[in-house]
Amino acid sequence: MTQNIYDDPAFFAQYSQFRRSVEGLDGAPEWPALRAMLPPLAGAAVLDLGCGFGWFSRYARQAGAASVDGIDVSERMLARARAETSDPAISYRQADLETVGLPTARYDVAFSSLVLHYIVDLDGLVGRVRRALMPGGAFVFSAEHPLLTAPSRAEWAEGPVWPLDNYLVEGPRRMHWLVDGVVKQHRTLGTLLTMLIGNGFTLAAIEEWQPTREQIAAHPDWARELHRPMFVLVGCRT
Amino acid sequence: MTQNIYDDPAFFAQYSQFRRSVEGLDGAPEWPALRAMLPPLAGAAVLDLGCGFGWFSRYARQAGAASVDGIDVSERMLARARAETSDPAISYRQADLETVGLPTARYDVAFSSLVLHYIVDLDGLVGRVRRALMPGGAFVFSAEHPLLTAPSRAEWAEGPVWPLDNYLVEGPRRMHWLVDGVVKQHRTLGTLLTMLIGNGFTLAAIEEWQPTREQIAAHPDWARELHRPMFVLVGCRT
Repeated sequence: MTQNIYDDPAFFAQYSQFRRSVEGLDGAPEWPALRAMLPPLAGAAVLDLGCGFGWFSRYARQAGAASVDGIDVSERMLARARAETSDPAISYRQADLETVGLPTARYDVAFSSLVLHYIVDLDGLVGRVRRALMPGGAFVFSAEHPLLTAPSRAEWAEGPVWPLDNYLVEGPRRMHWLVDGVVKQHRTLGTLLTMLIGNGFTLAAIEEWQPTREQIAAHPDWARELHRPMFVLVGCRT
Repeated sequence: MTQNIYDDPAFFAQYSQFRRSVEGLDGAPEWPALRAMLPPLAGAAVLDLGCGFGWFSRYARQAGAASVDGIDVSERMLARARAETSDPAISYRQADLETVGLPTARYDVAFSSLVLHYIVDLDGLVGRVRRALMPGGAFVFSAEHPLLTAPSRAEWAEGPVWPLDNYLVEGPRRMHWLVDGVVKQHRTLGTLLTMLIGNGFTLAAIEEWQPTREQIAAHPDWARELHRPMFVLVGCRT
């Protein structure tokens, strides 16, 4: 199954202090770009893959979604997600995305934020998402950019330069991220996009995220992010 | 106009000694992967953008293409291309891809090998290629991978690592490549793919090229190419 690092108490305590954990979507710098890839949510049946604290699930309802099914592997995150809404059109479920069964042709929109780089059998999940969407449905997601997961030493070097190696060597990467032993699955952008096409999706938008001028003016140290993208954002259609 | 470095005598003399200039397609390590993206060429009207010495134009005819129009900016390359065939179904034309006019709905297949990273107004060219293709037509090309064009010092560092910087800073890159002052146009993979989608193409195949095990066995120093891709190969359909 997918490593459930989010239920590690030390990890969870630190992750809970991230700006995106405290402020939600507005605390995530890539959110405006990702939101721009979404179709109108009014009346939509929405699937939130790796819903975490439920920020997107609640946003979708505010944007008019008819219903939202949120799925996450972390009991701790779901406990907080459940405590923060009493909306009966939002339903949360604990399940492992590696194996979770999804209904057929149920959803108009599937969404996932920064989760897919943990999935070992991503091809299997993408196929299940494809079958869970209605004709004309949309799958919009963010993931860590493979330039972030590739290197054997993923730390800025003098320059600054990003010391890239092993980009084309796919597979698990064990790293320190808040705690030791976090495992991410490295695959190239080509592999990710080919997997979507192979499962019957039509690619509609591909963005390697960068901070805007306004964001760099507000956070000058973010200028470093122009040297290599942290996130890849993808929108595709059935 | 596009920089025509190929008509620089010093550049041309060195480029002419490259394995791919001597042996043709079989001397290009990415050719088998690129060929796999091509539709059947039998009976097809083919456009060869940046045809160079005409290796692909002649291949397309051997594979059954009905006709091939090759375009290149370099008089020196076209002179050799013309000298190497008397096939009346191959026609070569000297023109700058930045501005060249193309007929409407004429071709079944457009092909380009390692040329698009020189084009300043790539969006304009992609739009013209799209309009030059018949419904259901294919555009298959290779380009230098943006990880190759991005860095301010595009040289292996100790490790080996590839010292990536400025990936998200698009624009011209002036470099030494056989001669000084070669100018390539850096754009991200996201920008390139979005440009294709925006011009009405459906993406069918995206590959960040890597040497096969057999190629590494034959050329052990190519193992280094696993650290960062040299080429991106793309197949798309109208």
